[in-house]
Amino acid sequence: MRTARVIRLKQRPAGTPTPADFDIVGEPLPELADNEVEAQTLLLSIDPYIRLTLDQAAPGSVIVGSGLARVTRSRDARFKEGDLVRHRAGQREAFVCSGATLAKAEFAPGLPLTAQLHALGGIGLCAYGGLFGVAKLQPGEQVFVSSAAGAVGSLAVQIAKVAGCYVVGSAGSDEKTAWLKEECGVDAAINYKTQPIREALAAVTPKGIDVYFENVGGAHLEAALARMNLNARIPVCGMISNYNGRVPITFGEELITKRLLIKGFGFTDFGREFYARFHADMTGWLMDGRVKFFETVLDGFERVPEALIGLFTGLNTGKMMVRAAS
Amino acid sequence: MRTARVIRLKQRPAGTPTPADFDIVGEPLPELADNEVEAQTLLLSIDPYIRLTLDQAAPGSVIVGSGLARVTRSRDARFKEGDLVRHRAGQREAFVCSGATLAKAEFAPGLPLTAQLHALGGIGLCAYGGLFGVAKLQPGEQVFVSSAAGAVGSLAVQIAKVAGCYVVGSAGSDEKTAWLKEECGVDAAINYKTQPIREALAAVTPKGIDVYFENVGGAHLEAALARMNLNARIPVCGMISNYNGRVPITFGEELITKRLLIKGFGFTDFGREFYARFHADMTGWLMDGRVKFFETVLDGFERVPEALIGLFTGLNTGKMMVRAAS
Repeated sequence: MRTARVIRLKQRPAGTPTPADFDIVGEPLPELADNEVEAQTLLLSIDPYIRLTLDQAAPGSVIVGSGLARVTRSRDARFKEGDLVRHRAGQREAFVCSGATLAKAEFAPGLPLTAQLHALGGIGLCAYGGLFGVAKLQPGEQVFVSSAAGAVGSLAVQIAKVAGCYVVGSAGSDEKTAWLKEECGVDAAINYKTQPIREALAAVTPKGIDVYFENVGGAHLEAALARMNLNARIPVCGMISNYNGRVPITFGEELITKRLLIKGFGFTDFGREFYARFHADMTGWLMDGRVKFFETVLDGFERVPEALIGLFTGLNTGKMMVRAAS
Repeated sequence: MRTARVIRLKQRPAGTPTPADFDIVGEPLPELADNEVEAQTLLLSIDPYIRLTLDQAAPGSVIVGSGLARVTRSRDARFKEGDLVRHRAGQREAFVCSGATLAKAEFAPGLPLTAQLHALGGIGLCAYGGLFGVAKLQPGEQVFVSSAAGAVGSLAVQIAKVAGCYVVGSAGSDEKTAWLKEECGVDAAINYKTQPIREALAAVTPKGIDVYFENVGGAHLEAALARMNLNARIPVCGMISNYNGRVPITFGEELITKRLLIKGFGFTDFGREFYARFHADMTGWLMDGRVKFFETVLDGFERVPEALIGLFTGLNTGKMMVRAAS
């Protein structure tokens, strides 16, 4: 009987998770039943939403998660040994699951496997969908992206630049703001830890803001609200400032006088046709270098807790992943 | 040469206006130039926003305002003597203005002229537009309206009932909640001054909320956010809790997980086709009694200052107007 390591919740975190909140244990893999597939995890996608699930999860349960895996055995006719698949089996080094929960990964030649988990995965679709699907971004508009050095944010600022917009990004260190200007091509970058966000944002948005791509909430949202133009849109992808305790904000009359739109969304909201446009656009932009991708890959399955904690302590630039095997 | 009475600002009010802040003077009407119209005021709409303008207005200037008038002479081909028009000429008993500033008032036979200034005017269009234009209200949905005994709110709850929805309203006294149930037909009413809004709202929305018609903000908004269903909408007509100092709210992950839409709007946002549908629907509902209207009409142009002061001293029930002629 084969065994595989699994990350289990030891106790619900109080605020930012710590290593003591997790257990790494080796467990036997079950036998394959009809229509089931056994697969070895290659890459795990480490995302902020995982933190949200911990407040409800039962101690002892496997931490949720998704990633890319390679099929090792199959009793589902749609998959054979060696196939690359997207999975939602949680933080497991290897697993057995129903073939119905897997999807074959389309693999663009010339692009690394990791791109499937960021620019061409849910994160890329979040950035593209928030800007074009929710906010109906137009060329020449004024765009602000918070957490712009994050996985979604760094794609959003680049896509907005490709779309011919004026783009401002915020991040939490001078290294990140320099990187945003040099690598992502933003027109202005704000270090919100060294500058008051409200004044700093006002200084670099002389024409106001038409689209605020929201990843943060709290003071960022208040600062953006004060700068919004008439008919401006706020696609809400995340509010990470709330994840370890809610942060209050105040609305002013601008919500009404500026006819603002605020809309929560997720990458599952967009239809097949929209997805096809995204996939074609993004593949092209990645191939010709107009969109660069940034990733932090920790090697070794046992580093999943470190990666998860690192999301909240600034460990990553771009998409956080763990490589479990190659 | 004909003369007409006009209300002029004598001095800027300190706090609630008093009769000493206004002058009523008779003045000659100018001769008609090309494309101008002379009209006699029938009804004047007396609204809180007028008070706000007094803090900036120059002493001696005519008090702003809008209403309904009847054309007495015209050198604009689009208008002829006897036409009923909506105007923004200010607090004047009669006036000469460019025809371009007027709009013909369609007059539903069988309805009082006053309805043109509430249910069939901007207030009615706010209620109807927020529900159908912004929130795309569907039959059978769960609706919550704050400040439901106010001018817009009392129309919004009645329209939502006509649309076949389950409707909850909030108001600030037991008299108002009783009135909401007896006169406006709401399914449940909450006195937010005697009950904690969050618990009270949860108790009367067993199927959650699909549309929250927002007039208040603050604790009302937080209470509603906690009850929103997937893909719920919040048309924001006002946030009166902010008018005397901003009230903070906290967002949770429901904004994203429930894919909520929050949209500020005003009655000027809707196109010609939408307006025509509103006018036809509302006229029908007023005629057959499915929507009731509430109004306070003072007779005599000289009572404009009394009406304006009365807005802040509780003189009116429902929409405040002055009848200058009939």
